[in-house]
Amino acid sequence: MSEGSNHQVLLVARPDGGVREGCFRLEAAPRPEPGPGQLLVRVIYLSLDPAMRGWISEAPNYREALPMDSVMTGFTVGEVAAGDHPDYAVGDIVLGRQGWCEWAISDGSDIHRKLDPAEAPISTALHVLGHTGLTAYLGLTEVGQPKPGETIMVSTAAGAVGSMVGQIAKLRGCRAVGLTGSEEKATLCRDDFGYDAAINYKTAPDLESAISRACPEGIDVYFDNVGGPISDAVLERINVGARIIVCGTMGIPDSGPGEPTAPGPRPNRQLLIRRARMEGFLVLDHLARLDRLPAELVTWVRDGALSYKEDVVEGLENAPRALLRLLAGGNQGKMLVRIGHEAV
Amino acid sequence: MSEGSNHQVLLVARPDGGVREGCFRLEAAPRPEPGPGQLLVRVIYLSLDPAMRGWISEAPNYREALPMDSVMTGFTVGEVAAGDHPDYAVGDIVLGRQGWCEWAISDGSDIHRKLDPAEAPISTALHVLGHTGLTAYLGLTEVGQPKPGETIMVSTAAGAVGSMVGQIAKLRGCRAVGLTGSEEKATLCRDDFGYDAAINYKTAPDLESAISRACPEGIDVYFDNVGGPISDAVLERINVGARIIVCGTMGIPDSGPGEPTAPGPRPNRQLLIRRARMEGFLVLDHLARLDRLPAELVTWVRDGALSYKEDVVEGLENAPRALLRLLAGGNQGKMLVRIGHEAV
Repeated sequence: MSEGSNHQVLLVARPDGGVREGCFRLEAAPRPEPGPGQLLVRVIYLSLDPAMRGWISEAPNYREALPMDSVMTGFTVGEVAAGDHPDYAVGDIVLGRQGWCEWAISDGSDIHRKLDPAEAPISTALHVLGHTGLTAYLGLTEVGQPKPGETIMVSTAAGAVGSMVGQIAKLRGCRAVGLTGSEEKATLCRDDFGYDAAINYKTAPDLESAISRACPEGIDVYFDNVGGPISDAVLERINVGARIIVCGTMGIPDSGPGEPTAPGPRPNRQLLIRRARMEGFLVLDHLARLDRLPAELVTWVRDGALSYKEDVVEGLENAPRALLRLLAGGNQGKMLVRIGHEAV
Repeated sequence: MSEGSNHQVLLVARPDGGVREGCFRLEAAPRPEPGPGQLLVRVIYLSLDPAMRGWISEAPNYREALPMDSVMTGFTVGEVAAGDHPDYAVGDIVLGRQGWCEWAISDGSDIHRKLDPAEAPISTALHVLGHTGLTAYLGLTEVGQPKPGETIMVSTAAGAVGSMVGQIAKLRGCRAVGLTGSEEKATLCRDDFGYDAAINYKTAPDLESAISRACPEGIDVYFDNVGGPISDAVLERINVGARIIVCGTMGIPDSGPGEPTAPGPRPNRQLLIRRARMEGFLVLDHLARLDRLPAELVTWVRDGALSYKEDVVEGLENAPRALLRLLAGGNQGKMLVRIGHEAV
C-alpha cells in the first residue's frame, strides 16, 4: 500500500438477510495527521467477532447501528506512531478500538491499555487477555457461578470465547462438555481445550440423546453463544437451579428491522419447572476491566494453563471475507486480521 | 352428604388437549378412621390454583404427575376432627394439603400450620397469608428485587398472585402496571388493587403500543404468570437490567407428552441486548415458609394494606367446573371451594 495513504474498510450496506462481502468496501484515504493531544495509531491486528453482525445491523441492539459509510468498528492492537499524549508514547503497543483501517487518530479514549510485548504475544490482547477472555471469565464465573463437580455445557465450544469457557470450567473443577460444528473442532475441544466430551451437532443423529449421553448428570450451567435449535435441545436437559448465560445468538437467523424473530420453543416452562435462570451478558458493560484484567485470568495465561488458537488472515482487504468465514463457523480459534508487521 | 361417608374428587383422565370436567369424578367412600399418631381432618376450603393444570398432566413438570384415580391434590384449610398428635388438637383449624375431599387422614407432615381464626379469616391462609401471598412476596422481592421508582409489569394482574404483586410493588414505591383479560378486571386492578395502569389485553388493538403508553419509562420487572404472546409483547419493552420472574405459563397452550411446546419468539436476543434476567420461581421450594411467613407480609395484611378478593364456589362437586373457570380467566379474585361450614 502506498506511502501516505490510509486504506480502510467502510460499511456500505446493511446486512439485511445476512452479512455479505458487499456490505463492505475497501478505500484509500489520505493518512491522517494527529492534532494537539492526539495520537496516530498504526493498526497491526484486527479482532473479528461474531457480535459484529449485530453492530452493523439496524435490528434492535445494545447500541446504535454503525452509521453507513463509517470505518468498520472493532477491537485492535496497534502501535503509537506519532502524537503527543500524557498516557502513551511513540512506540507503545496499545489495545484499542481503532477499527478496520491502517492508521487511526485517537484522543486516548478508545485505547484500553498499553501492552508489554515481553509478557505475552501482543495478539493475545484481542482474545485470552482481552475482551473474549473477559467475556468467558466474567460470564462463566460471575453469571454462571459454577461449583466444582457441576456440568458446564458450552456452545461454539472451540471458538475464541467457548474454548476459554471450557478451560476455565475445568480449572474450576467442573465437567466441561462442548457443542461444535465439525469433527475437527470436536477433536480440538477434547485434545487441546480439555473438554470431557464434545458433540458435533451437525452430525449427531439425535442431538438430545447425544447431550444426554455426554451429560449423564444433566446440565448445571449453559454458556450459550448461539441460541436457536441447538440451545433448545440443551434446555431440555438442564438441572434444577441451572444458570444459562446468553452471550451470543448466532444460531438465531437474522431478521430485518420490524421482522419477527425466527420462532422456536419459548423457554418459560423449562425455566419454571427447573427454577432456572437465563441471563444476558455483554462484555461491553465491563470494558473498564480490560485495563485491570482479573488476576486469576492473567495468572492462568502466564502459567500456560489456558491454551488458545489463532486463525490469522493477512491483509485488511481480506477482513470482510474472514468475517463471513467466522460467522459461518469456518474458523479455528480466534479470528484475527494482521494488517501490519509488529515493528515498522 | 350422608353421615359416615367421605365424598372425594378423583383424577380419572389426563388433561391431554386441555383440562375438562371429565378429568375428574366425584365418588363417595367410607369416612376414614385415624390410627395411632394420625389426625382426621374435616376439610373446609379448597384452594384452586392455575398450577393444578400441570400437576395432573404427564407433560414434564417440577413433580411427578398425580397418579390416576388419586384424590385430587391441593392446599386446604380444615379442622382437626379427631385423632392424637403432639402438634395438633381436636378443634384446631389448620392449613394443609388434604386435597379434594371432605375428610382426610394426616400424620401431620402435610399440615403447614395452625390458624388463629381471631387473627384473620381462615380462608386467607389459602391466599394472602398462604402460598399465593408467599409466591407474590418472595417472587417479587427476592427474584425481582424491585427498586423504588421502577416500573413493575404484572400479568394476570387481578388474579390471586397478580393482585398481591401489584400491591406489594406499590408498597415498595414502584409504578405498577397490570395486564388482565376483561374491562371488569382492569377496573378492579385500578380501583381495588391500586395499579397505576391496567391493560385489557383482549381488547387492546395494539398490545405493544398499549404497553408502551402505560410504561413510558420501560419495564424493569415483569412478574409473569402467563408466558405466550402477551409476554412476548412485554419483553419488547424491557429495560436494560430487567428481571423477569417466570411464575406461571397459563398463556402457553397445553402440549401432550412428547409434543412440542407451541413456538414463539425465543427471548435470547432480547435478554442479551437488555442484559436481562429471566428466572423461574416455584413456591413449592419455599413451603417451609408457610409456617413462618415474612413479617412484612403479615403486617401488611393485618394493617389492611393489602386488599384481596375471594371467588368462593360452594360444594365439592363444583370444584372441577370452578377449576375450568379459573383456567379460563373467569374468576375474580382467589378461587376457593367451600365444602363445609366453619364450625360443625
